[in-house]
Formats: sequence, structure tokens, C-alpha cells
Amino acid sequence: MSFAEYFPIFDKLTREEQAALLDAVTYRKIEKGALVYNGSADCFGVLLLRRGQLRAYICSEEGREVTVYRLFDRDICLLSASCMMRSLQFDITITAEKDTEAWMIPVNVYKNLMERSAVIANYTNEILGTRFTDVMWLVEQILWKSFDKRLAAFLMEESAIEGTDRLRITHEQIASHLGTAREVVTRMLKYFQTEGAVKLTRGLIEITDFERLSGMSE
Amino acid sequence: MSFAEYFPIFDKLTREEQAALLDAVTYRKIEKGALVYNGSADCFGVLLLRRGQLRAYICSEEGREVTVYRLFDRDICLLSASCMMRSLQFDITITAEKDTEAWMIPVNVYKNLMERSAVIANYTNEILGTRFTDVMWLVEQILWKSFDKRLAAFLMEESAIEGTDRLRITHEQIASHLGTAREVVTRMLKYFQTEGAVKLTRGLIEITDFERLSGMSE
Repeated sequence: MSFAEYFPIFDKLTREEQAALLDAVTYRKIEKGALVYNGSADCFGVLLLRRGQLRAYICSEEGREVTVYRLFDRDICLLSASCMMRSLQFDITITAEKDTEAWMIPVNVYKNLMERSAVIANYTNEILGTRFTDVMWLVEQILWKSFDKRLAAFLMEESAIEGTDRLRITHEQIASHLGTAREVVTRMLKYFQTEGAVKLTRGLIEITDFERLSGMSE
Repeated sequence: MSFAEYFPIFDKLTREEQAALLDAVTYRKIEKGALVYNGSADCFGVLLLRRGQLRAYICSEEGREVTVYRLFDRDICLLSASCMMRSLQFDITITAEKDTEAWMIPVNVYKNLMERSAVIANYTNEILGTRFTDVMWLVEQILWKSFDKRLAAFLMEESAIEGTDRLRITHEQIASHLGTAREVVTRMLKYFQTEGAVKLTRGLIEITDFERLSGMSE
């Protein structure tokens, strides 16, 4: 599979635009755990994921983290090139949650194409709108949902992403996704265990009753 | 002052695009308190504010409100036309906080122009980026800032918007901006009064010590 097959609007571009992209794009392998993008200090380009998983999160001054969104196969990582849009003025950090392979379009190449091509500019709009929607969902979660519901929803989501009911994730990691302290996660997981929804063993959270966990997330 | 003078990219458009806009745009007067946009059920167009003030907010199922951003003179209200972007999938409500006058570009006209013009599409991108930045600011406020700091910052902002240290706003209205209960606002305002930062009288909050209030907001 090539870049042209993965980039959704490739066929709608002119020959010149296609050539400019193919000429500039590089293929990158990013190791699990690697820092992909480090906020405003950074600006390297637009990533198109072939496979893998990225996590975008924000950090408080005290080092508390909250996951804002995640990217999977075929997703576009736009905020790693947010310097090309003046109005995007916030810090976000992006790391690889799994070994990831992606095409990278350098920021100056993408910006030049976007400024001249309505097709690319509108496509960029749609991606930005998708991330905007992700963030609005997060706002509603934080504002209106109690922590037990957010944790239950997170476990269901993790299970869907990993394709297993046996989740190898630490309480510390969950805390960083949901923006809370490890102790709060541990306490709630123990309550879930009492309710029969999960079983906790060292380094593992096993979902034992999906229906119950699903009910808890609503 | 005309639409052409208020619309920042008017001079960068082709004659045909300028003519299409001038032909379609209508001038609207919106009374204070009026509902401008009511979430996904609604989609009427892009507003360019000549004067006035709009408030965009989200609502919980229980009717609790939180202000997401506000728009002032010369601002563009894009989310009132969010149906033109498939990826924008969230409900927001927009009302007029003051008597407002604005030009309205119908959604089909704006969408057609945006699809063909890179200039308009990129301009739309920048506006969307600005709102995105507003929302990310809100996320950080909610996540990391305690309520006393948020309330102090809100009073400073209100004072700057209204150009007065005598704020005619109810505790209920403040609660709707910040997403909390009226009682919580009243309790914190009384604490601010004890600290000498504000003076409370019926229907009025007077800022008596800006420096102290500013210190409380940090």
C-alpha cells in the first residue's frame, strides 16, 4: 500500500499537487513510547498513520496528564503541524502508544499546498473539525460525567481498541488518561471488582462482566 | 461601514466571489436575550458581527450551562453554520447577550464559495482554529483551576468587557457561565467580599480592589 492509496483526497488533487506531495513525503517508523510532538516548541509536519497508535494529551504545571484524543490506522495527525495555523495557540503533547509507521508531509510543503488548493484546505478543515468534536466530547465528559462512568467507559474503549477483555495497563496509566490520581483509579477499580464487573490481578485488569460495565458507563 | 469593510478577506476574493457574497448577505438585528442558534436542529449561516455580543454555551441534560466562548464586534460566528462541515458533531447554543447587529451569509452560499476558494477555506480554518483554542483554554480552566481562581478571572473579564467596575449580573448568570450552582457562586463572592476584593449589594457586584482580585485569579 502506498501513500497515494492512504491519503483520502489524493485523486482529487492536480498532477502538480500529487507530484509535490510524493516528492516531499517520507516514511517514518516511530517506536512505542517515543515523543512525537512536544507542544509549541515543535512543528515538523502532518502525519498520515499507516499503522500504530498515537496519543495526544495536555499537561498541568504539576505534571498531571489528560488524554485529549487518540489516532489510529489511516488517521491524520494535524496538530503536529499546528504552527502552520496562526490561530492554534495551545500546547499539546503527542506520543506513540504502540509501534507506529506513518508518512510525514513536511509543514512547509503542506502549508504551501493548502494555501493554493481549496480541496486540501477543506480537507484540513474537516480534520480540524473532527479534533474539535473530540475536545467538545471531552469537555462534556469532564463537566457532566462522574468518575465511575468515565472509568467504565474508558475500560470498554480500551477493550475495543486492544480486542481483548484482558487489559495490560497500570492504574497510573489510566490516571494519566483521565486526569486524576492513581489512588482514585485504584479505589474505583476495587469497587468495580466488588460489583463483579472486573477482576484485578498484578498488572492486569480483566473485564468479567461486559454488560455490567457497560451499564456503569451510562 | 459596509460588509466589504468588515469582512477581513473581502479584498482577496475574485469579483465573482465578492458579487456572490454581496448579493446573498442580509443585515440582521438581534435583540438582547434572543436565541441565535439552537444546536444540531439548526443551521442558518455565518454571522459577521457589526456590534453586540453573543454567547456560545453547552448544556447538560439537567440544564446546567457552561459558556464556551463569546463573540464581539467584528467576530465571525461560524458554528451557527456548522452543518456545512460534516465533522463538527456537537451541540452548542448561541444567544445574544446584548442587542446585536450582524451580517448573515446563508449557509449554502458560504459553503459553495468555501468549496471552490482556497482563500475562504483557509480563512474558515483560522476561525475554526480560534474557537478550538478557546475550547482548549476552557478545558485547562476546568481541569486545573480551582473555582475561586475561575470566578476571580471571570469578574476581571466581565469588568473589561463592560468597561466598568460595577457589574450588573446575577449570581445565577455567573453560575451559568462557569457551570456551577448559584449557591457556590454566592458563597465564593461572600468570601471575596470578606477579603475586600468586591462589595455586594442587591443586583450589583462592585470590584473594590482590582489588584487583590487579579492576585486571586492567578
